[in-house]
Amino acid sequence: MSRNRLLIGAALTLAVLLFIFIGISPAPKPEPAASTFPTTLEAVTQAEPGRRQLDIRQWQTDSGSRVLFVHTGQLPMLDVRMLFDAGSARDDGQPGLASLTNAMLDQGADGLDVGDIARGFEDLGASFGNSSHRDMALLTLTSLSAPEFRDPALALMRRVLHAPSFPEDALARLRTQMLQGLRMQQQVPGPQLSRAFNALLFGEHPYATPSGGTPESLPGITRDDLVAYYQRYYTAQNAVIALVGDITEDQARDIATQLSAALPQGERAVRLPVAATLTERHTTHIDFPSSQTHISLGNQLISRGHPDYVPLYVGNHILGGGGFSAILMDEVRQKRGLVYGVYSGISPMASGGPFTVSLQTANDNADAALKLTLELISDFVANGPTDEQLQLAVDDLTGSFALATASNSDIVGQLGAIGFYDLPLDYLDEFQQAISDVSAGDIRDAFQRHLVPDNLAIASIGPRAPDPARASETPVDDSTPADTAE
Amino acid sequence: MSRNRLLIGAALTLAVLLFIFIGISPAPKPEPAASTFPTTLEAVTQAEPGRRQLDIRQWQTDSGSRVLFVHTGQLPMLDVRMLFDAGSARDDGQPGLASLTNAMLDQGADGLDVGDIARGFEDLGASFGNSSHRDMALLTLTSLSAPEFRDPALALMRRVLHAPSFPEDALARLRTQMLQGLRMQQQVPGPQLSRAFNALLFGEHPYATPSGGTPESLPGITRDDLVAYYQRYYTAQNAVIALVGDITEDQARDIATQLSAALPQGERAVRLPVAATLTERHTTHIDFPSSQTHISLGNQLISRGHPDYVPLYVGNHILGGGGFSAILMDEVRQKRGLVYGVYSGISPMASGGPFTVSLQTANDNADAALKLTLELISDFVANGPTDEQLQLAVDDLTGSFALATASNSDIVGQLGAIGFYDLPLDYLDEFQQAISDVSAGDIRDAFQRHLVPDNLAIASIGPRAPDPARASETPVDDSTPADTAE
Repeated sequence: MSRNRLLIGAALTLAVLLFIFIGISPAPKPEPAASTFPTTLEAVTQAEPGRRQLDIRQWQTDSGSRVLFVHTGQLPMLDVRMLFDAGSARDDGQPGLASLTNAMLDQGADGLDVGDIARGFEDLGASFGNSSHRDMALLTLTSLSAPEFRDPALALMRRVLHAPSFPEDALARLRTQMLQGLRMQQQVPGPQLSRAFNALLFGEHPYATPSGGTPESLPGITRDDLVAYYQRYYTAQNAVIALVGDITEDQARDIATQLSAALPQGERAVRLPVAATLTERHTTHIDFPSSQTHISLGNQLISRGHPDYVPLYVGNHILGGGGFSAILMDEVRQKRGLVYGVYSGISPMASGGPFTVSLQTANDNADAALKLTLELISDFVANGPTDEQLQLAVDDLTGSFALATASNSDIVGQLGAIGFYDLPLDYLDEFQQAISDVSAGDIRDAFQRHLVPDNLAIASIGPRAPDPARASETPVDDSTPADTAE
Repeated sequence: MSRNRLLIGAALTLAVLLFIFIGISPAPKPEPAASTFPTTLEAVTQAEPGRRQLDIRQWQTDSGSRVLFVHTGQLPMLDVRMLFDAGSARDDGQPGLASLTNAMLDQGADGLDVGDIARGFEDLGASFGNSSHRDMALLTLTSLSAPEFRDPALALMRRVLHAPSFPEDALARLRTQMLQGLRMQQQVPGPQLSRAFNALLFGEHPYATPSGGTPESLPGITRDDLVAYYQRYYTAQNAVIALVGDITEDQARDIATQLSAALPQGERAVRLPVAATLTERHTTHIDFPSSQTHISLGNQLISRGHPDYVPLYVGNHILGGGGFSAILMDEVRQKRGLVYGVYSGISPMASGGPFTVSLQTANDNADAALKLTLELISDFVANGPTDEQLQLAVDDLTGSFALATASNSDIVGQLGAIGFYDLPLDYLDEFQQAISDVSAGDIRDAFQRHLVPDNLAIASIGPRAPDPARASETPVDDSTPADTAE
């Protein structure tokens, strides 16, 4: 531990601050490829693919929070997730305000300092977390469900919710870290590209706000700003509470009532306008002296809850979301060796949802990689997947989706999304069934409805803007990364 | 969850692979500054500073593993930590072998695939982890302590230990990720500097081995290499088992016996030679087209268990390890605004232990920042800390050290270190007492015994090698990062 402390100090600027700003999770485990549906250890090796019928209960507290609850009895644990419409889309001209407010919640509350709070949860075997995203802010608690542990853990969570103190010294420290992180971003192409792409894609929409703040905005954010933001957005009306675990519905009602009552009642955040779809090609380039060129391209696709989500979700998996088996990875990386990696994703949010393809390539291959990627997207939109590609994707997705609903923490995540995005309660079951039912034609039609390949935003960073028109038709040489990598 | 899956895909090359190779933990919480010693939630606000007498039991299993156990009854949980002398220092000409072997352990075992294993632990409310460092490899398990959860979790851990299958497809995937990570490092100064500094500091010593492998070494590492490495180093004789939690000593003996018996008996790894101290200044520079210059400097100080550890530990905290209150941060960043950050640390390992100072500075300030840093180190070695600086550090360290032994997971980490580094059982108590007893003279004397400021290794990366002799004596301008940051 003492060694860790030292290393933490030494590594601080290198890693911690940088990672805060790249803003994505570190090293998730590779996705399990299993198509089983284990709920116990015994079942791990025996279970057949299947779907889980979740008995979701929902209600509203007197203070106005929406609550979703699933009882699970296998483990003596409780997962709580509170979601607030308090992401960086609510920064309102002060980029970084939502992130700072959320990060400050556990830095002091009700006479407790940051150490008291951290140690308080830890001594109860509980883990408490806070995080902030573009469209939501989260507080999470995982606790033992026995009352002697659960009650004090929830009491501590309520103190944090009810009376965060936003101490000035912690604010100064976090703000400094964020500023240092922003400076370090200038050494790394990824975060710069991400900001430029979001600006290009979202334009004046609040989703364009850089969640980590800017060198101009951060110094001006004061404790008063945090307090005002907290009072406005961390309210009972603006909260969804998801509960999963080994408690009764009566206990869940009690817990939700108390959590909700710890907050000012407030009001629900006003709905954001829907982010506009680009109707012609937009490009931007950042000059950067690197041997690689990073490219992001995409456009608005659909908001969360859109009925075309399933065919787009499956189609994206086939096109570029499914890792090494996806079309983009197979054609651009495996067969042609033009890129280090190429991925696509859909991020449906409450008021927008981009489809994004990102690729990293040696500078000399950038023109050809972009050209081929655009061709593959156009071809996919025009012709859709083959039946074989579809079948592989459905097998893959139904397997992993069953897995995704197996643990309490997974379920609480799904419940939170259902509550936050106003999805139907049978969303999970319907979603799984719909994936199995989708046809190649459905996918093609959905992509044709929502994605015009000529209208993509294209952002790049590297020594030269990539230009597909410049790509030669000659085969690339053999000294490409994919060839040495495998 | 489905959205997370998509994001994972999209973010893969940007973050995951990169972070694996930077090789340090993401975003640790800021260190709590509390000087209380809470063991229950009640105590959080009431406790006085104090020390914890841990009743450590130790024994050896029949197969030859060293075991350390502490009973704690506050929480119905069990923490297990197995440490193997199987870090990258044992790579023996195949950089990356130790990391790959460790990372592959949970990718398949005894008929279970990676998903079975991950889901198996998760379904039991247990968390299993594996990680690899310069001098050790770790397997950790946190489980509920009730037999119905503990027993199957331990059974699953034993299956992983006993029969890892090292599946070829996972090996290909992990190796590809590591290679991609290495390529991405070339965009980022930090990891390149770290490798260059280690090479300069450790020379031919095995600690110089780049843990993440090299573009030359990784393609040649085969499944057979992993199996051989596992058989040689993941043995009962080469293992330390630390157990902390709500189980009896008899149960702990039983658990340790079974874990130990799951391994080949093998033999203990031969002791490494001690890394040599540099006896003159060594410098190296990497040209990199960045606006910042990163500099690391240091020398071998002491191996773990050296009696001078306490004064050096406290002294380092005062000099550069204590964050914003440390001398280096105060003088070089706060007062002069020459750097974005500057930190020092000691990393005592079994056969070496560098003292390292790292700083990041705008290119124009690099000469002056290095000059001032060297002067401050020399001054500190010559004169030691003031009594006031010492008192602040002791208060800070005894407070945080008491905190560090409060939770099961902290205790199991300490136990593991005691077992792995052959520290005395009363190390924790002695360490805390010794910190309180250390004098400013002790610190000065210890630094003078171990650190010769003229003999530091200095590694840098940026557009130009920093040269203290070139530093002007004129004050730096005001547009420095520290000024805008706070």
